[in-house]
Amino acid sequence: GEDILKEERAQSHLPVQKISEFLFTKTVLERKYKILKILEAEQVFDKSQNYFAGRVDKFETALARAKRLAQLRFKHAWTEEEFRMATDLISEPGPYGLHDSMFLITCRDQGSDAQQSMYYERAAKYEIIGCYAQTELGHGSNVRGLETTATWNPDKKNFILHSPHLTASKWWIGSLGRTANHAVVMAQLILNGKSLGPHPFVVQIRDMESHEPLPNVHVGDIGPKFGYNTMDNGFLLFNNLEIPHESMLARYSGVDPKTNKYIRPASASLVYGTLTFIRSNIVMQAGSVLARGVTIATRYCAIRRQFQDKDAPAGSVGESPVLNYTMVQIRLLPLLAATFALHFTGKSMMDLYNENKKRMGEKATAGDAKRGPGPEEINAGSDLLADLHATSCGLKSLASITAAEGLEVCRRACGGHGYSSFSGIGPWYADYLPTVSWEGDSYMLTQQVARYLLKSARSVLKGEKPTNDTTQILSTYLSRADMGAAFDVLGSDEDLVAAFAWRAAYLTFEALKHRDEHKKAWNDLLVDFFRLSKAHSQYLIVKNFYDALHRSETAAELDPETIAVLYKLFRLYALHTLETEASEFYTSSAVTVRQIQLARSTMVMKLLQEIRPHAVRLVDSWDFPDWQLDSSLGRFDGKVYEDLFHRASEQNPLNGITIDPYPNNGILFKSNQSAAYKSKL
Amino acid sequence: GEDILKEERAQSHLPVQKISEFLFTKTVLERKYKILKILEAEQVFDKSQNYFAGRVDKFETALARAKRLAQLRFKHAWTEEEFRMATDLISEPGPYGLHDSMFLITCRDQGSDAQQSMYYERAAKYEIIGCYAQTELGHGSNVRGLETTATWNPDKKNFILHSPHLTASKWWIGSLGRTANHAVVMAQLILNGKSLGPHPFVVQIRDMESHEPLPNVHVGDIGPKFGYNTMDNGFLLFNNLEIPHESMLARYSGVDPKTNKYIRPASASLVYGTLTFIRSNIVMQAGSVLARGVTIATRYCAIRRQFQDKDAPAGSVGESPVLNYTMVQIRLLPLLAATFALHFTGKSMMDLYNENKKRMGEKATAGDAKRGPGPEEINAGSDLLADLHATSCGLKSLASITAAEGLEVCRRACGGHGYSSFSGIGPWYADYLPTVSWEGDSYMLTQQVARYLLKSARSVLKGEKPTNDTTQILSTYLSRADMGAAFDVLGSDEDLVAAFAWRAAYLTFEALKHRDEHKKAWNDLLVDFFRLSKAHSQYLIVKNFYDALHRSETAAELDPETIAVLYKLFRLYALHTLETEASEFYTSSAVTVRQIQLARSTMVMKLLQEIRPHAVRLVDSWDFPDWQLDSSLGRFDGKVYEDLFHRASEQNPLNGITIDPYPNNGILFKSNQSAAYKSKL
Ligand SMILES: Cc1cc2nc3c(=O)[nH]c(=O)nc-3n(C[C@H](O)[C@H](O)[C@H](O)COP(=O)(O)OP(=O)(O)OC[C@H]3O[C@@H](n4cnc5c(N)ncnc54)[C@H](O)[C@@H]3O)c2cc1C
Ligand SMILES: Cc1cc2nc3c(=O)[nH]c(=O)nc-3n(C[C@H](O)[C@H](O)[C@H](O)COP(=O)(O)OP(=O)(O)OC[C@H]3O[C@@H](n4cnc5c(N)ncnc54)[C@H](O)[C@@H]3O)c2cc1C
Repeated sequence: GEDILKEERAQSHLPVQKISEFLFTKTVLERKYKILKILEAEQVFDKSQNYFAGRVDKFETALARAKRLAQLRFKHAWTEEEFRMATDLISEPGPYGLHDSMFLITCRDQGSDAQQSMYYERAAKYEIIGCYAQTELGHGSNVRGLETTATWNPDKKNFILHSPHLTASKWWIGSLGRTANHAVVMAQLILNGKSLGPHPFVVQIRDMESHEPLPNVHVGDIGPKFGYNTMDNGFLLFNNLEIPHESMLARYSGVDPKTNKYIRPASASLVYGTLTFIRSNIVMQAGSVLARGVTIATRYCAIRRQFQDKDAPAGSVGESPVLNYTMVQIRLLPLLAATFALHFTGKSMMDLYNENKKRMGEKATAGDAKRGPGPEEINAGSDLLADLHATSCGLKSLASITAAEGLEVCRRACGGHGYSSFSGIGPWYADYLPTVSWEGDSYMLTQQVARYLLKSARSVLKGEKPTNDTTQILSTYLSRADMGAAFDVLGSDEDLVAAFAWRAAYLTFEALKHRDEHKKAWNDLLVDFFRLSKAHSQYLIVKNFYDALHRSETAAELDPETIAVLYKLFRLYALHTLETEASEFYTSSAVTVRQIQLARSTMVMKLLQEIRPHAVRLVDSWDFPDWQLDSSLGRFDGKVYEDLFHRASEQNPLNGITIDPYPNNGILFKSNQSAAYKSKL
Repeated sequence: GEDILKEERAQSHLPVQKISEFLFTKTVLERKYKILKILEAEQVFDKSQNYFAGRVDKFETALARAKRLAQLRFKHAWTEEEFRMATDLISEPGPYGLHDSMFLITCRDQGSDAQQSMYYERAAKYEIIGCYAQTELGHGSNVRGLETTATWNPDKKNFILHSPHLTASKWWIGSLGRTANHAVVMAQLILNGKSLGPHPFVVQIRDMESHEPLPNVHVGDIGPKFGYNTMDNGFLLFNNLEIPHESMLARYSGVDPKTNKYIRPASASLVYGTLTFIRSNIVMQAGSVLARGVTIATRYCAIRRQFQDKDAPAGSVGESPVLNYTMVQIRLLPLLAATFALHFTGKSMMDLYNENKKRMGEKATAGDAKRGPGPEEINAGSDLLADLHATSCGLKSLASITAAEGLEVCRRACGGHGYSSFSGIGPWYADYLPTVSWEGDSYMLTQQVARYLLKSARSVLKGEKPTNDTTQILSTYLSRADMGAAFDVLGSDEDLVAAFAWRAAYLTFEALKHRDEHKKAWNDLLVDFFRLSKAHSQYLIVKNFYDALHRSETAAELDPETIAVLYKLFRLYALHTLETEASEFYTSSAVTVRQIQLARSTMVMKLLQEIRPHAVRLVDSWDFPDWQLDSSLGRFDGKVYEDLFHRASEQNPLNGITIDPYPNNGILFKSNQSAAYKSKL
């Protein structure tokens, strides 16, 4: 394997280091290696037994790691970015996961000033350990259907938390099962017998000393999962638990203890802000999540040799690297292109988000009575925010599905060895998978995109002037719908982007016709909405990828040859998507059947061939340290077989046992030395 | 959950029991419940701790189960079918897995009469335990590239087995890692310094008493995998191990110890026979593998309620079952249709196979020198066999991919709870996944289909008379290619089938043009070949589904209403496939764009609506016992939430520990009672 990767790298002159810096900046890369050095030196982060342990052992190791990581954080006075980098490198959900994220964020953003010092500051020092308890056994997506109640007791001036049914049990709550002693609990606020919808309460659930559950609190771990087994997702039931007035997080809304009256919340747009941020983050991450799989599969398929080429001249010897087979290329290289496409799209969303946040200025506070009817109905102040919110829903959906399904494509491309845990793809995939379901189920979220696009289309039809990119492409389409389009998708990159805009606009107006003219039921349109959202999101990705390459900064940072290769990746992503979704492009008259045939049989095949020599360097530029990948197949040095063999024979506790093989002998293990393989915590 | 499923079942009058009998026969169903009763009574088969254990514990339990199962087999004098049924119900790969299958079959089919009593008969009694060692670290798909050598030593009249490189190590071999004391080893036969290709040898690898590896044998388990962790896939290296002459399985070929000459093998068609049988089996199984996921997801989505319908009249209460959302239906119901489609297709392949086997009469024997150059080149005696062989390759590829990807669709349709191991989908998916890679990698196999179709097309072009269905559809296409087609795909089931045949034939002649006229390189056509194979296989599935419903036996066994519902499933499968692959259907002129739009927006949506009320009864007719499904979400009685809660709180060893939550405290577990949850073997 070693020589092979050297040759692969010699085939291409792409400046790997430069591309990495272009993707991540030099600062971030330096940060990575600084942190990596610290982690590698710690025995507790040794990964060699990760894939062998049962649930309890897995969790124990993860707890040890989480504790050590928190210590290192203080010891080295890490910034937030440095801490995130460390968790990225460890690449494993840990028992403090939800404490470090949602619990802290919620206490900080939704707590009053007094609550911030009471909860946030102590939590930041790990004096209290928290989690974020929203989902219940019976309700996840439909947050307004939550059953846990927090009833205001005007006599005692406190709340009574209660779980009226089994289905009201909190469920799936990360860090709750065994670890947290506090929880942010989302519960229906009941005031004078009336429900005012879900509100956040900070609740102590376990004793600070004994760590045993408090009276009237029933809490535990929900059991093993497809992945995420290093995390203790938990359940939580309350039996009329009394909690003080200060438990209710009161920055935006509250109960006035004197009047027993409700204090109305501020504008809903702030809530969207957090959701939009989280979703933009998921889009950005999707690129690098997928890039891990693509890195592993590309390196391995360059090394793996199997069969001679059918058309090889008689007498030639040696087998072909499977990466030379077009059937392997067509699976991997469009995904390689997608990693860049997602990265640039996520980056530009984050930029937009930050810009917008600056524009919005300081936080609003409670009393600002402009809250809309709930997260599904957008009632946003700024058009940019509405656009970004809708955009982030559709892109979250597409990006998470692309990354999840793409990882499995990478795994299969590795043939049998892809199935070994040592490939590093399977376990990574299993841990990533919930991203498709959480932060808005990726199938449901598409309804929000459609609702927004329909609304935009109605405004364009009414003749309102375009105020953002979405209304812009819709009105461009309208103005030319009668004349038709003639996009030169094979010859012009701009036309290629325009064809994606055209198809998205076409589908938007089709959906609008169904809903507004034919009066179709909402439910009968969900499948069309899913398609529409996907089409719009694919347009955004293609556009963002193109814009990123087109900027002057790019020409300043990278040489023309490198940029030319990146343009090829752009075209591969766009044309491969175009031919996969051919029938929509054709039906919308964005392209002709002939163009689709040419894209499929000529252009895409040619791009595969042209990108092939650069494949290894392109994945190198994603710059994953071996320690992070933890993969025999994806090693930088190509020592694939040696590493598979080493792990199997030297690190595999099953080889510590000798069995009795005969059915009639009651004895199972004649001897068992498997414990000797277990790493020390 | 309970009442809901009762109502669901009351909505439809499909005769579940009758449909089950139609699918499986009464005999098979009775067999199932007889065996189930025996297994349920045995503590060792208790599944409640399956999802918690680490690798070594998992294997230990699996070994205990395998032993007990072998005992029961003898105790109850089970037939082969009864034994298979038991392993089906247990639904877990076990340490005797490859012994019970490939090792026994190979010894029986490839051994001489003397070898049959020496190996097969003793193995059948578990006096020797074997495995099938073909794949190596460096070679899987390309069997002719295997590196292990078996060199004939004319002086000692024996063979010397040797692994010349690390990559020659046998790898992935089921039952080898810890269990087997014998192996069928595929090795390059070297005679007089010349290699004669891979041949099978039966080799003892461990001591029959101590179970320690023999001298010059290096053997062990290859480590943890994405699934299949109850099985000990192993590695195996030989250091010039001497094995006796009788080790070489000699029914079809051998070395004459007197002359030191090679005895040529019999016709290659026999080898195809076994491969064809295995692949046909995979197709048949794919239907029921997928049906497990569809059963679980359909029942759960009928119970799961989330949100009110958007268009619900004001004032209405209660949430909708998510199975009512078209976006859930479009994911699940076409898969439900696919389960039946695959089942009928697999069944008719098995029938064809058995018919053909009868026709071929008794086994050929060694000396029959007609062997072709290898598995890729078909040199078949009968046209029917060639057709069945090619068909089985394409269908294995499509069926395994459909089942694997369909299971993940089912899992996601269940939202968050689908991620819990208690859903029963994830672990089942993980164990099924290697089917995509083994018995012919599903991406590579499509080349064999294409090669066969091109050959058939050439013969049709030459004017040869059609001899089977493939040449028939090709010549029908040729005769009308100039006139074009006008299939009434929305109005006539026969036309729908014919449109699939047309598209497959069109793609065949397109590919032929590229290869024979444009002289394109084989490698440049692999992507087209993959498409072609898929198109041809989809045609076969649609055709077999239609034929199965159209037979007179069907009308005799089932009432007209039931048959009408099954026809709807047929149409859903066909039309949903048609709109998914729309651009090929359109390009081939099999249908118009308008037809595709109608199929998509009208017909498919209408079929979903019509099938919806029968969904629960249709999955009921697959007749999976709860014990087999082992799923909280898929329970027959619908007690979804109770069961999730019960498993989490009563069977979850993680809840036996109390941790210390503070980073600076060195202690991890304050107490650990997790062992109390472990079931006894
Ligand atoms: C590993 C993991 C960790 C988690 N951590 C946390 C945590 O820390 N805190 C927390 O509060 N929660 C957590 N969750 C819960 C998570 O947020 C929810 O599972 C998620 O929101 C999905 O909701 P659900 O499970 O209720 O899906 P459901 O809404 O029940 O969805 C089921 C199915 O119905 C479909 N569906 C539902 N409604 C509609 C509709 N209106 N139209 C069309 N289709 C519809 C969905 O697409 C899906 O296919 C976690 C989940 C997982 C898997
Ligand atoms: C769980 C499990 C159990 C197994 N049990 C056994 C067992 O008991 N005994 C045994 O002998 N083996 C066993 N195997 C091995 C199995 O049969 C092989 O893994 C399988 O044949 C795939 O071969 P490979 O891994 O060499 O894939 P490769 O051939 O290396 O494939 C790698 C990639 O290259 C592609 N590719 C390769 N050649 C070409 C080509 N010519 N054209 C286009 N693309 C190509 C493939 O599509 C794939 O994407 C097992 C495997 C697994 C995963």
